Amino acid sequence: MSYKWLNKVCWDEYGLVPVIAQEASTNEVLMFAWMNRDALTKTVELGEAVYWSRSRKKLWHKGEESGHIQKVLEIRLDCDEDVVLLKIEQIDGIACHTGRHSCFFQKFEGDANAGEWQAVDPVLKDPESIYK
Amino acid sequence: MSYKWLNKVCWDEYGLVPVIAQEASTNEVLMFAWMNRDALTKTVELGEAVYWSRSRKKLWHKGEESGHIQKVLEIRLDCDEDVVLLKIEQIDGIACHTGRHSCFFQKFEGDANAGEWQAVDPVLKDPESIYK
Repeated sequence: MSYKWLNKVCWDEYGLVPVIAQEASTNEVLMFAWMNRDALTKTVELGEAVYWSRSRKKLWHKGEESGHIQKVLEIRLDCDEDVVLLKIEQIDGIACHTGRHSCFFQKFEGDANAGEWQAVDPVLKDPESIYK
Repeated sequence: MSYKWLNKVCWDEYGLVPVIAQEASTNEVLMFAWMNRDALTKTVELGEAVYWSRSRKKLWHKGEESGHIQKVLEIRLDCDEDVVLLKIEQIDGIACHTGRHSCFFQKFEGDANAGEWQAVDPVLKDPESIYK
């Protein structure tokens, strides 16, 4: 399976492309992950985000365990054709495995000499009840 | 130079971390790039985005040629501590080297069998007048 539009994407040395998932309704950045050709094809076919899990080395239909599916409303490619941006609707409003809305919940506070990362966003659902 | 907060970041096998630049006022995703420890440190110290250019293999103070500086208002780290999100003010409203607001100006249209990437956002400034 190799579509012409897939060949416009500059896949990296591992055959992957970085993907940013942005909530369409708020423009919030919820997640970052990777796709290979198969994942991007399935995302287009299904209309739901399918990533490549680098740790598990397999396709990962986001929400397959948690139910936190991402409906894909729009797909964009950047100027260098090596980064994909998804505009999504996040089912249940939880993208993060910690039960938060967004994965980017740690904020840098302080300065270079005395900086720290603070978790500033609330947990909306106990992860233990998400992954039963 | 190695600050404690820098060690919380999971640097990849090249000593890099992916970085998403998001416009603070609109939440639009403007750009994607990479940082090493030095780049992130300088970003924090300067309050302006400093990336690592993988092609030129050197620090890249965004806007150093174009004037399209990115003032950094907030820095976030994701749940796995391996992706950074910057909330920025984009000077002149142009992040892309093509003279567009955002680098993500190519939109997927069609379906898997007949898909294509269409440039859908306007060029705000001729790149030749940006890079004199």
